Amino acid sequence: MTIRKTTCPEFSTRYPLLVKNLMNTPLYMYPDDIAMVFRSSEGDYFRLTWRQWHERTCRLANALKALNVKTGDRVAAMCLNHHWHMESIYATICTGAISHPINVRLAPDHIAYTITHAEDKIIFVDRDVLPLAEAVYDRIRDNVEAFIYMSDKKELPETKIRPLYAYEDLIADQPKTFDWPDLDEDTHAVLYYTTGTTGLPKGALYTHRQIYLHSLHLTMTVNTAPRLPDDPPRPNQPVPMMNIPLFHIHAWGSPFFNVLMCSKIVLPGRFTPEGFCELVQTEKVNSTMLVPTMLAMLLEYEKIDDWDLSSLTYVNIGAGALPLGLKQKAEKRFPYMRVGSGYGMTETYDGVIRAAIKRDMAELPREEIDQVMVKTGLAFVPAIDVRVVDEQGCDVPKDNDTIGEIVLRGHWIMEHYYKDPDRTAEAWRDGWFHTGDAARIDSEGYITIVDRITDVIRSGSEMIPTVLLENLTSNADFVLEAMYVGVPDEKWGELPMAIVRLMPGMEATEKDVIEFLNWQGVATGKLAKWMLPVYVAIVDEIPKTSVGKHNKKEVRKKIDSFLAAAKKMQ
Amino acid sequence: MTIRKTTCPEFSTRYPLLVKNLMNTPLYMYPDDIAMVFRSSEGDYFRLTWRQWHERTCRLANALKALNVKTGDRVAAMCLNHHWHMESIYATICTGAISHPINVRLAPDHIAYTITHAEDKIIFVDRDVLPLAEAVYDRIRDNVEAFIYMSDKKELPETKIRPLYAYEDLIADQPKTFDWPDLDEDTHAVLYYTTGTTGLPKGALYTHRQIYLHSLHLTMTVNTAPRLPDDPPRPNQPVPMMNIPLFHIHAWGSPFFNVLMCSKIVLPGRFTPEGFCELVQTEKVNSTMLVPTMLAMLLEYEKIDDWDLSSLTYVNIGAGALPLGLKQKAEKRFPYMRVGSGYGMTETYDGVIRAAIKRDMAELPREEIDQVMVKTGLAFVPAIDVRVVDEQGCDVPKDNDTIGEIVLRGHWIMEHYYKDPDRTAEAWRDGWFHTGDAARIDSEGYITIVDRITDVIRSGSEMIPTVLLENLTSNADFVLEAMYVGVPDEKWGELPMAIVRLMPGMEATEKDVIEFLNWQGVATGKLAKWMLPVYVAIVDEIPKTSVGKHNKKEVRKKIDSFLAAAKKMQ
Repeated sequence: MTIRKTTCPEFSTRYPLLVKNLMNTPLYMYPDDIAMVFRSSEGDYFRLTWRQWHERTCRLANALKALNVKTGDRVAAMCLNHHWHMESIYATICTGAISHPINVRLAPDHIAYTITHAEDKIIFVDRDVLPLAEAVYDRIRDNVEAFIYMSDKKELPETKIRPLYAYEDLIADQPKTFDWPDLDEDTHAVLYYTTGTTGLPKGALYTHRQIYLHSLHLTMTVNTAPRLPDDPPRPNQPVPMMNIPLFHIHAWGSPFFNVLMCSKIVLPGRFTPEGFCELVQTEKVNSTMLVPTMLAMLLEYEKIDDWDLSSLTYVNIGAGALPLGLKQKAEKRFPYMRVGSGYGMTETYDGVIRAAIKRDMAELPREEIDQVMVKTGLAFVPAIDVRVVDEQGCDVPKDNDTIGEIVLRGHWIMEHYYKDPDRTAEAWRDGWFHTGDAARIDSEGYITIVDRITDVIRSGSEMIPTVLLENLTSNADFVLEAMYVGVPDEKWGELPMAIVRLMPGMEATEKDVIEFLNWQGVATGKLAKWMLPVYVAIVDEIPKTSVGKHNKKEVRKKIDSFLAAAKKMQ
Repeated sequence: MTIRKTTCPEFSTRYPLLVKNLMNTPLYMYPDDIAMVFRSSEGDYFRLTWRQWHERTCRLANALKALNVKTGDRVAAMCLNHHWHMESIYATICTGAISHPINVRLAPDHIAYTITHAEDKIIFVDRDVLPLAEAVYDRIRDNVEAFIYMSDKKELPETKIRPLYAYEDLIADQPKTFDWPDLDEDTHAVLYYTTGTTGLPKGALYTHRQIYLHSLHLTMTVNTAPRLPDDPPRPNQPVPMMNIPLFHIHAWGSPFFNVLMCSKIVLPGRFTPEGFCELVQTEKVNSTMLVPTMLAMLLEYEKIDDWDLSSLTYVNIGAGALPLGLKQKAEKRFPYMRVGSGYGMTETYDGVIRAAIKRDMAELPREEIDQVMVKTGLAFVPAIDVRVVDEQGCDVPKDNDTIGEIVLRGHWIMEHYYKDPDRTAEAWRDGWFHTGDAARIDSEGYITIVDRITDVIRSGSEMIPTVLLENLTSNADFVLEAMYVGVPDEKWGELPMAIVRLMPGMEATEKDVIEFLNWQGVATGKLAKWMLPVYVAIVDEIPKTSVGKHNKKEVRKKIDSFLAAAKKMQ
């Protein structure tokens, strides 16, 4: 007698939310469309259709199986953005292993630490990052079972790293199909490390279910966002360029939602203004993601008029607040372009707050919309709950003034730090994840980040809103970027210092900065007089973190040299 | 000592997919916008903002709690579409009970059966449906604990039904907040009964998770669908009119995805062409859902030119195939309007296949797009897997010719029939839900429904494609609607009969039907000569089921009277 199952929850009520299912959409809808375009640093182009890309991914999955990769194993990638990287992500995750993109901009010590902490079994490496892999090799060699060299050549470079397999060689004879397993949706899929600005990097794990739900909510939210009357039409074919490295939270989840959206994914090697412009022009890129520094570099690029960038209608700014000045300069320079931003962190996978208008604002004048869009934004409802709370965990008043800490819960909030219950317990308290970011909230629900709780400048008993000062200062025509830090002071605790980088070719003095702030800040009621910077330093370079954010920690370390360069204004 | 939880999966990796979360979006984004507009059959208007509607829903949830409604209890509604119905759905589901919308178009016997089978504890009833409730009262009174009368008046009508509470009276003194519980996402939320054309109605249960995922995928899919160059712009504010009764699978999930989309939901009482036109004009309705019969009624409505319907840019047709002729007639009559359709059944909650173009078709001429849009369509990837299989369960060739059965699995396929393991086992076999619908599939993945497996006309060893014949016939200018059934025949098994209703004011004969089919079907290669109807009957009325579909079962019962009215053509 055979027992027949009469219900199938695994195919109905419990049909699992798996990363492999994201591939079904392009494979069903557009198998012969171009899925990915990679432009190498030498300017060579590689193109794959969805069918080709999927076959290569299946071959790689078979190869990983032959290398004994099992569910839960960590498989790392130490490389730039290219189709090999995209293949390795899907082959790793969809077989049940965990993809760990190694942040190659960390200090070698921290890189070695994350590899050891993650217990990576396999590491993918490409030519650009090979020297770095060699630099840390002696510290990781005992734990890593195999390295795979990503290149279109079957030959291997001379290196001490071993065993080292050539990617194309490894997959050449493997079958081009793979029976992707029906995993539990709570299987871990990815492991990302924080940049460790406050100690050793911490690992944030995410599951298949979290990634799937992020892709779905993000795609829904982007496509239902209210449109302004003069917005360019939304293209039927998304052509995003992935300018954020995949080793930063997989470029905020790009490999996943872009596959769901059947995008033509444009993968540059290293970011250069020239490579960027060439790809926009040749591939008709219509959206991209940048950190503020990259956008500033584009605005400085002297040959920008040689290129046709008119297809590029949307730029998403992350990893740092978007200063209004930078947004306005970019949109003035490229009138067809809209610049938006969001807020997230390694522990929140991607955005949890996004700059957005409400639909009843669509007819407002442009300047008023800019004022809305430059706020950190609105919570990612209904996927994510966001609150701004005081030290007792109570909501602060929605007066856009009282400062509290942002706390979160929802689908793509990290559950725990990998192998670190103590730091998990610091972050998850009373059922809310504590971000350590200070913010205020207004009566419409708009949230504005003020600072890292630890970066707030405390002058007397007051807190100085550094993000507001940075935004205001960067509005000045002559300012390219601006940062504020506290200078230790016996009487006040801290005094505010402005560190300013000028627009190329512009002349301005420290006094111009103060005058601009008086005119646009104090006179308009945005700033109190006591908030004005006591010191102003005009510099050639502002230190950045590995993700391109202003590195306040570094500036504080070297505060004496910045003070030496600064002028005291009061 | 207090034990502190150091991970919070219930707020991160396992953050539940619950219907209550759908309400968060409008309550956060647009609390003071109009949520719902109800126009009663008398022409009275009722309007509620999201805040008001939510407060009323909270009051009702408190009232249900006071009536001892518990998780898993069935709470039924026997009424038309209005805000009371919408409130009852959310108050029921979000407290953990199961919402059972009673199909008031079933025969009284079947209505009593579904109430008894569901073991409904509470029944909501409105004035329109009260006589029907009274008609079945004696058969259900022993099991139902309370009835709630939906009306803006606090007075109760004279009736034998008891206990009967006045809705507004019941909620008046209840608190306007409710602490919606954090349910398990696999909690059952809704119970829908099939129309029972093949026996007693069967109950299909769905969970919170299924409803949430349906709303999310649907919203994403609708908003990422490729746009044609001449498509009207998609409005920032969706204003759908709910013309499908909520007692049909909750109007295909309307209360859920429309809340997620912060739509202004327009609720008509009974469908009349005049009421429909008034609401479109006054509320600037921009989308609606209709069964083909309703669309045909609008085309016949003599005063249609008195109204401004130009806001209505999208009409979704369901509960029956959309004949190309009807689509073209409607789009010619209303040039700003696009008519689409989908395929689903009670056991699939809403659509699992939808008429859609692929983005590379967007520039095709209109006639070619119509030919694509009139196919049943594309599977609802990645949420739903659709296959067309032969009797051995193997995929039929993708030749758009071989006929097989549609089988399904995915997020919104029913897991089991309520209290009916035998019929569940008939439907769920080998991990696939068997629809009983016959279809073919082409090389692009487009699926075309041919017929119910049981409605297929078998002539000799061949199957006659009735849906194709019905579509072709309705293309004729003079045809309003057409249906095909098999007439028993000793030699052939069955012979095809066309039953045709003419456009108002049009004159045509049985011979015209055959000539049109020869010209547009046989001559173009769409039909083989032997498929032509042997009998043609021109009638004033084609029998309909309670959901407005052609009732082939009824026609087969009365086949002799249709044969008497028909003309033999061969």
